Amino acid sequence: MQESARNRFEKLQTRWELLRCTIDTNLAQYTSKLSSDCPAQLKEAIEYSLLAPGKRLRPLLVLLTAEAVGGDPQKVIPAACAVEFIHCYSLIHDDLPAMDDDDLRRGMPTCHKKFDEATAILAGDALQAMAFQLLASEVRPGGIAAICCALLAAAAGPEALVGGQMDDLLAEKKKEKLASDGDLLQAIHRRKTGAMIEVSVQLGALVGAGSTKHLELVRQYGESIGLAFQIVDDILDVESDASTLGKKTGKDSAKGKLTYPGVFGLEKSRDRAAELIETATASIEGLGEAALPLMDLARFVLDRSH
Amino acid sequence: MQESARNRFEKLQTRWELLRCTIDTNLAQYTSKLSSDCPAQLKEAIEYSLLAPGKRLRPLLVLLTAEAVGGDPQKVIPAACAVEFIHCYSLIHDDLPAMDDDDLRRGMPTCHKKFDEATAILAGDALQAMAFQLLASEVRPGGIAAICCALLAAAAGPEALVGGQMDDLLAEKKKEKLASDGDLLQAIHRRKTGAMIEVSVQLGALVGAGSTKHLELVRQYGESIGLAFQIVDDILDVESDASTLGKKTGKDSAKGKLTYPGVFGLEKSRDRAAELIETATASIEGLGEAALPLMDLARFVLDRSH
Repeated sequence: MQESARNRFEKLQTRWELLRCTIDTNLAQYTSKLSSDCPAQLKEAIEYSLLAPGKRLRPLLVLLTAEAVGGDPQKVIPAACAVEFIHCYSLIHDDLPAMDDDDLRRGMPTCHKKFDEATAILAGDALQAMAFQLLASEVRPGGIAAICCALLAAAAGPEALVGGQMDDLLAEKKKEKLASDGDLLQAIHRRKTGAMIEVSVQLGALVGAGSTKHLELVRQYGESIGLAFQIVDDILDVESDASTLGKKTGKDSAKGKLTYPGVFGLEKSRDRAAELIETATASIEGLGEAALPLMDLARFVLDRSH
Repeated sequence: MQESARNRFEKLQTRWELLRCTIDTNLAQYTSKLSSDCPAQLKEAIEYSLLAPGKRLRPLLVLLTAEAVGGDPQKVIPAACAVEFIHCYSLIHDDLPAMDDDDLRRGMPTCHKKFDEATAILAGDALQAMAFQLLASEVRPGGIAAICCALLAAAAGPEALVGGQMDDLLAEKKKEKLASDGDLLQAIHRRKTGAMIEVSVQLGALVGAGSTKHLELVRQYGESIGLAFQIVDDILDVESDASTLGKKTGKDSAKGKLTYPGVFGLEKSRDRAAELIETATASIEGLGEAALPLMDLARFVLDRSH
């Protein structure tokens, strides 16, 4: 008898919790190994931001994708942590006064509020370097490590993560002119959120020794859930309250940021997210049972409340 | 008949000029390839800072070290450019108001003055990612690319470049207490300037296919000239005027920054620099004729006026 969707969802939650502990333990291990050449204040700021409670969605995607292509999730932990390093650095820098100017992140003062701006800039810079150090030195064989570094750097670079954030800031300034620019909105989401989610599954498949065919299937999955994730994020920003989300809500629209519900309306945004999740799950159907956790995760992205 | 020191020095200057052109051409090619996914303003800021006239000392070290170990300098151009990307990002971030708060760099307005703070932060972030993308995707074989990424990331990370900048900022705040702390001064220089110079020669030797023995010899050379370079920089800050140096001078001591002449006096600083240059040239004596340009470069570091 096939497991019911509810059972599978509960199973995913339990595994997610376990894997999140594994990831957090490893993140803490990596930072604890920083020598005294890393100033105490810098280390403290890195740990403050990195070890704050988080969903760890991107590392989870690395682990579950490795499993989906028949790899050993334990072997991809360095790659999973590297992706979280980049994600964490981007949050620290995005929160800076010159950028989104946020005081609250995951229910706690942002890095520059807790420390100061210089420390926050440097903690972000350090985390980016640490991501590549980890990938390059712990992924084996070296040839795969190099491909992983190239992919992660592209996802974090000016044509993806950084470019998306730049356009997001620029769009905010020109809000009247762009209020209904759906193409720009999608281009921002694809680079600012989508690219890092996509590269998470690519790294999982690569380090998990998946075939070229599997790599392309999971890439399509990652592309679809990456965009869906951001659409749902936009919807939650409109609908949720700060205590559930752990950060200010309604601030995107208050700032005149381009958002999915703002451009397309709530209903169409929900439809689009659901459609993308269908595309995502269809992409990996060929992977069979091993990909069930990834399928459940896609549905979670759609139904999540925070 | 052995060439006189003057002849060799002139020869080095001519080659440096030629290699600088090669490096600049390649830096410009890499940024020109950025697709439209990189916002125009971000690209402009990256090019503004990266293509501003500079000595290109670090890329030059990569090229000359490759040659010194018998490698082909043309093959190490991606590594040379990657090192310059990191150097350029660190300058952009160091100049930010929250950090050293500088308005002038290489005789031109700093990145955040020309654009704005957000753009400068993002241009720096982008350049760091671009460095690893270039190294990881263009250095062959992949195993060597991975080692290069790991070394460059370590040199750019919290235990080196970023850590040195953090301690430099912290030392400034506590200036009275630390005014004569020679150990801290050296630890800052070793991480903030030395590590990137050291990794430049390591990358040159690795990509130039040098032996393990050669790699260690040039590493010692890099370590010594890295520290000498910063001591001379401190001396020049006291002695030169802004028009020669292209940036504000005397500002280190005005800010109460720890400097070599400030801690040890001018004469002892000059002696220490000369001693380090001797150590550097002695390290690579075993490499023979191929290492002459590196020897000349070490002497240039000592005698430079800007």
